[in-house]
Amino acid sequence: MAPHPFMPLSAQETIVARDIILSLHKDTIVNFREIFLQEPAKELMKQYLELEHAARPGQSQASKRPPRLANCLYDVIGSDKIPVYNESVIDIEKKTRVKHATFGSEHQATLAIWEFEDLIEACEKSDMFKKAAAEFKLPEGFEWVIEPWPYGGNEEGTECKRYFQGLCFAQDTRNGNPDANFYAYPIPIIPVMDTQTKEIIRVDRCATGGRGDSLTAQTCSERILDHCENADYVPELLPGGLRKDVKPINITQPDGPSFTVTDESLVEWQRWRFRVSFNPREGAVLHDVHYDGRSIMYRMAISEMAVPYADARPQYVRKQAFDFGDGGAGNCANNLSLGCDCLGVIKYFDSVTIGRDGLPKPHPNVVCLHEQDNGIGWKHTNWRTGRAVVSRMRELVVQYIITLANYEYIFAYKLDTAGGITLEVRATGIVSVVNIDPGKASDYGNVVSNGILAQNHQHIFAARFDPAIDGHNNTVVYEESHTAPWDKETNPNGNFYEIRKTVVNKSIGLDANPADHRIFKIINPAKKNPKSGNPVGYKFSPLATQKILAAPGSLQEQRALFANHHVWVTKYHDDELYAAGMSTMQSRRETGGVHDMAERHEDVVNEDLVVWNVFGLTHNPRVEDWPVMPCEIYQLHYKPSDFFERNPAIDVPSAKNNSSVLVGRDSGCCSGSNKL
Amino acid sequence: MAPHPFMPLSAQETIVARDIILSLHKDTIVNFREIFLQEPAKELMKQYLELEHAARPGQSQASKRPPRLANCLYDVIGSDKIPVYNESVIDIEKKTRVKHATFGSEHQATLAIWEFEDLIEACEKSDMFKKAAAEFKLPEGFEWVIEPWPYGGNEEGTECKRYFQGLCFAQDTRNGNPDANFYAYPIPIIPVMDTQTKEIIRVDRCATGGRGDSLTAQTCSERILDHCENADYVPELLPGGLRKDVKPINITQPDGPSFTVTDESLVEWQRWRFRVSFNPREGAVLHDVHYDGRSIMYRMAISEMAVPYADARPQYVRKQAFDFGDGGAGNCANNLSLGCDCLGVIKYFDSVTIGRDGLPKPHPNVVCLHEQDNGIGWKHTNWRTGRAVVSRMRELVVQYIITLANYEYIFAYKLDTAGGITLEVRATGIVSVVNIDPGKASDYGNVVSNGILAQNHQHIFAARFDPAIDGHNNTVVYEESHTAPWDKETNPNGNFYEIRKTVVNKSIGLDANPADHRIFKIINPAKKNPKSGNPVGYKFSPLATQKILAAPGSLQEQRALFANHHVWVTKYHDDELYAAGMSTMQSRRETGGVHDMAERHEDVVNEDLVVWNVFGLTHNPRVEDWPVMPCEIYQLHYKPSDFFERNPAIDVPSAKNNSSVLVGRDSGCCSGSNKL
Repeated sequence: MAPHPFMPLSAQETIVARDIILSLHKDTIVNFREIFLQEPAKELMKQYLELEHAARPGQSQASKRPPRLANCLYDVIGSDKIPVYNESVIDIEKKTRVKHATFGSEHQATLAIWEFEDLIEACEKSDMFKKAAAEFKLPEGFEWVIEPWPYGGNEEGTECKRYFQGLCFAQDTRNGNPDANFYAYPIPIIPVMDTQTKEIIRVDRCATGGRGDSLTAQTCSERILDHCENADYVPELLPGGLRKDVKPINITQPDGPSFTVTDESLVEWQRWRFRVSFNPREGAVLHDVHYDGRSIMYRMAISEMAVPYADARPQYVRKQAFDFGDGGAGNCANNLSLGCDCLGVIKYFDSVTIGRDGLPKPHPNVVCLHEQDNGIGWKHTNWRTGRAVVSRMRELVVQYIITLANYEYIFAYKLDTAGGITLEVRATGIVSVVNIDPGKASDYGNVVSNGILAQNHQHIFAARFDPAIDGHNNTVVYEESHTAPWDKETNPNGNFYEIRKTVVNKSIGLDANPADHRIFKIINPAKKNPKSGNPVGYKFSPLATQKILAAPGSLQEQRALFANHHVWVTKYHDDELYAAGMSTMQSRRETGGVHDMAERHEDVVNEDLVVWNVFGLTHNPRVEDWPVMPCEIYQLHYKPSDFFERNPAIDVPSAKNNSSVLVGRDSGCCSGSNKL
Repeated sequence: MAPHPFMPLSAQETIVARDIILSLHKDTIVNFREIFLQEPAKELMKQYLELEHAARPGQSQASKRPPRLANCLYDVIGSDKIPVYNESVIDIEKKTRVKHATFGSEHQATLAIWEFEDLIEACEKSDMFKKAAAEFKLPEGFEWVIEPWPYGGNEEGTECKRYFQGLCFAQDTRNGNPDANFYAYPIPIIPVMDTQTKEIIRVDRCATGGRGDSLTAQTCSERILDHCENADYVPELLPGGLRKDVKPINITQPDGPSFTVTDESLVEWQRWRFRVSFNPREGAVLHDVHYDGRSIMYRMAISEMAVPYADARPQYVRKQAFDFGDGGAGNCANNLSLGCDCLGVIKYFDSVTIGRDGLPKPHPNVVCLHEQDNGIGWKHTNWRTGRAVVSRMRELVVQYIITLANYEYIFAYKLDTAGGITLEVRATGIVSVVNIDPGKASDYGNVVSNGILAQNHQHIFAARFDPAIDGHNNTVVYEESHTAPWDKETNPNGNFYEIRKTVVNKSIGLDANPADHRIFKIINPAKKNPKSGNPVGYKFSPLATQKILAAPGSLQEQRALFANHHVWVTKYHDDELYAAGMSTMQSRRETGGVHDMAERHEDVVNEDLVVWNVFGLTHNPRVEDWPVMPCEIYQLHYKPSDFFERNPAIDVPSAKNNSSVLVGRDSGCCSGSNKL
C-alpha cells in the first residue's frame, strides 16, 4: 500500500532519493545533511483529503495521490575541494529530480552531526589550539571536553565563510564515569574552525571578570578550575545521594488506551482525528486535525526557537542558537523511554535519520503518544439536592523531546475532551555557563555555583498554526474588553464594558495585550453557530511574554525578526514553514521568515491564512536552576469559541474511579449527598 | 491534648462559645451566623512556633500556648424585633468574652444559609410576588425555582436596609428529576426582600431585549420560556447520553502516600512541613510552611473574589458577588468524593459548621490532600553517551471546591519537589444567564442557547501571602529586564540587556508588566545565598490578567478597589485578612480592605509584610461554556529564587516506573542508549 501523503519517508524511499542524488553528482564527494519528505502542495492535498474524508471502506483516493517527494540537502565537493551546498527535490516514484538549487555564500546549510566530529578532530590536530590549551592547568584527573556550537551571527565585515566554534570544559574522569558533569568546569577559550579547510583559525580568549571589569578583562589564572566545584546530577555521582521517601504513583489502563493508531500515522481518539508526522527540522507535526468530522487545523508545528544571550563581551555575542534552523529539532530528538518520559500506556513513533553517506538509520521512539488525566474537567453541584456531577478532563498528548548540547526542550500537543488544543513547552536541561573569577558577581548573569556564571538569555519560540476552521478560508479577528464611557442611556451605572473587535485585513505582526484582555479568534466567516449566530471559530490568548530584548538593529535582533511580535498573521503559501526563514546558520538578518511574509501585506480576510505564535522565557538564571534546571512550563491554549453547540465534554462520563483509596476512613461517593 | 493553635474549633469548643454567647444575651432571640477560630496574634504565635520548631520529643511548648479564641457572628433580636448584628470573641478556656461589637447599618453581616430559606418563604407568602409571577405562563410540568442572591451594592440614596434578591427560573419536573437544569429557563423578574421584615418589598421586571433595545425594554411575552430549550447535564437526562469510549486511567499508590498527617493538621511531605486549617470565610488555609526546616510562608489563603457583571440594565447592575465576603467560601465548600474530585490515595479533612441555633454540624471532607505526578520535572541527556537522566515532578495538592449557586471554583495549593508552590484556581459550573427574546443578540453577553443570554462578567481573585522567608522580616523587590542602550564600552553589539531592580519601600498597589518581564521577589535582606551572594528569596510573576473594568467611581469598582492592582504589598497587622474588607454585603465602597491598608503608606522594607495577588478572568461566555463550562485554569507560581543552593529536586529519583506499558512493541529503558 502506498504511504499516506503526510507519512515521512521510509528507509527505502530515503535510499531511492539518495541513489538518485549520487547518480546526479558523479565523480564528486557528496556529504548528505538531510533527506526528508517534501510535503505535497496544499492544493493537491485538499483534493486528496476531500476524497479521504468522504471515503467509504473499499473506496480509494489513489487517483488524487500527490507525488512522493524527497527534500535532499547535501554538500557536493568537487575537485577544488570546496563544498557547495545543494538542495534537490526528488520524485521518488518517477525517480527524477524536480527541483535543484545551490546555496550561495549568503546562506549556510543547517549543521550536521558530522560537522561536530570535524571540530573535535580539528582541535586535536591544531597546534594553535594546543598552545592555547596549555596555558591552563587542569586539576589531576580532569580531561578536556569541547562542545561544538553554531558560530552565531557573522560579524559585519567578516568573510562569509562557514565557521564552527567550540565551548571548552573539563571533565573529572577520576570516577571513570563518562556522565560526570563537565559543564561545572568551563575553560575560557573558544576555538573557531573554518569548515571548508577544517582548520582551527582562531582561539578566542574569553573574559572571566565581573561587575566593573572591562569586556575583555582576562584576569584568570592558569589554575582556572580550582575555584569550581562538583555539580553532578547522575544518581550514582550525586553528592548526598537520592531521596528515599518518594513512593510510587502508578498509572494503569487496564482496558488499554482509548486511542487507535492506524498506518503509524492516523490517530483517532474521543472524536479527534489527525495524523502525526515527524521531520528533521520541526520534529513532530500534526496534520489534518478534525473533531467529530469537522476540520480545525490543516497543520500544526513548532517552527523555530531563538536563544540569544545577553552577555556583552565579544566572544559571547555569538551565543545565539536557532535550535530548529541551525541543527534541526527533529535531528536532536531523544529516543523516549517507557515509564520515564511518560506514564501509562504509551505508543511510540519511529523516524529515520541519515548519515553523511545518505544511508538511512533508524531513529526510534522519537514521538510518544499517551492519554492522561488533567484533573477536574467540569463540575456542578446542585446545592438544593447535594447532587454533584463531576467529570474529569482527559488529554491526549503527542510529545517529543530534544537535546541541544546542554539544554532540553519538551514539546507537547495536548488535545482534550473539551475540544481544546494546548501547545506545551517545558524548558529543562543545563543552563549555559562560563567561568567567572572567584568572589565576583556579574551584570551578565547569576553566579549559580562557585566559579560558574549562568548568563542571562531568552528562549523565544515560534509555533505555526495553519488553521482550517470548517474549511480553508478563514479570518482572524481580535477582541478586546474595554471600560465603556459613562452614558445616561447606555451605561448609567458605569458597570458596562464593551467588546471591541478588529478584523485583521492584511498580513501583519501583532502583540499580546493582556491589559485589555486581547484574544484572537480564527473564524470561518461563512459559517454561523446556530446558537449564538456568531461565526464558528477557535480562540487563543497570546502569551504576553517578553519579546526579544537585543537592541533594534543589532545582529541578534536582525537574525530573529520574528521575535518582535507575539502573533503574526500571514497568507498561506506552500513551503513557508519557518519563522526565521530557511537558513539561520550565521545569518545576518532573518530572510524569508515571517517578518518578510508579513511585509507582503497580503489580504487575509476569508483566505487561507497562517497564524504564528511567538512566546518564550527571559531566563535570568537562579541558583535553583543548577545543575539541571526544573522545568519552566509554557502553555498556549487554543479553544473552541462558538465552534460547537455546547460544551463538547458534557458527555464525558462522571463515573467514579474505583482505584482511588482513602487515607484514614470511609467517604461518600461521587453522586452522593453534598450538604450545604 | 490541647489542640494546636491553628487547629479549627472542635464541635465541643463551638458549643462552649455558643453557650457563652447565649448566656450573655438572655431574653432575646440569637440567630447565629458563624462561630470559628479567631487565629492567635502573630507575636504570640511566633513564640509558640519557635518552641515548636526547636522542640525535641517529650518537650512541650504549652507554656507559650496562646488562648483559644472563638469568633462569633450573630444577630440579636430584641423585643423590637429588629436584628442587631453582633461580633464577639470568646476565650474558650477562660469562658469569657474578650471583645464585643455591634455592626452599624453601614456594614452588613455576611449571609447565612437560613436567610436563603427566608427569601423562599417570603416569596411563597407574597401577594406581590404571586401577582408578578402570574404574568408568565410556564410550560406544562414546569415549576418555579427561586435562586437567592446577595443584593449587590446598595444604590446611592436608598436606605441602608438589608435586602435579598432572588433570580427566577423554572424547572422541568416531568421526569421527576430534581436535578433537571432549571438555569435553562430564566424568568425575567427579581423579587427583593427586606430581611428585617421578611417581606417582599419589590418585584423588579428585567429587560429581555437585545442590541438596539433600550435598557428597560420589556418586550417579552407571557410565554417567556417557549423559546428556551433543555440543557441538562446530569447523565440520566443528557440528550444523546454519555460517550462510551473513555477507558479508565487508574492511579494507584501500592506503597501508600509519601505524606504523613499528624493531629489532623500537620502535613509532612518531601521536606515540606505545614499545617492545614479551614474556616468558613476563606476555606483551606496553609500555615507555617517550611522546607527542610527553613521558613517560607507564615500563612497562605485565598482572600476574596469579586464577580461584577457588565450588563448595563438596571436590574443587572446589582449582579456583583463577593464570594468570600458575602457568603463565605468555607461555608460553600463541597463535601469531596473519592475517585471524582481527586485520584490516587486521598486524605480528607473535615470541618464543623453551625446552624442558626449555633449548634455544630459536621462538614465532612471539605479539604482533600493527595499527591500527583506532573510530568517531567527535569531531564538531561548527555548526547555523547546517550545517557538520559529524567526525573518526574511530584506535587502535593491541598484542594477545596466551592459552589456558589450556579458557579463552582476549585482552589488548590500545590507544593512541589522543586521547592515551588502553585496556587491554582479552576472556574467551572454554570454561567449566570438571563432570558433574551428570540432571535436577538446582545452587547451584554453571548446567546449560548436558545433564549439564553450568558452575561459578560469578570472573576477577580485575591490571594493573600504572608511570607516568612527565613524569618518574618522581609522585603519585596521587583525586577525588570530592559534593552540596554548601545554603548561602545558596555554594549558594543546591542545584545546586552540589563536587570533593573526596584525596592518596594512603602505599602502600595502595583501592576504586572509582562512586556518588561517584571517579576517580584520576596527576599530576606539579612540572609545571603552562599553561591550567588544574593539575598535568599522566593519570586513570582503576577498573572497579567485584566483588572476591574467597571468605570472608576462606579459602585462596582468602588466596592472592589482591590481589583485595581495585580499586586499589593502591605505591612502585616493582625486580623487584616480580607482584600475587600470584612464586610462586603451591600457595601458601597471597599472598607478596611487592601486599598485602605496600602493607603497607610507604611514602611515595608525589612518588615513583616503581606503580599496580595490579584488575578482573574474576563469571562465573555462562549457557546461551549454551556450548560456546564469546561474549567478555566489559572496558576500562580511561587518559586525559590536563590533560596536554595541547588535545584532542590536534583535528588528526586529517576527510577523507571514499572507500571507503564507499551502499545505495539518493545522499547528501550530509562537509562538506556539514546543515539543522536
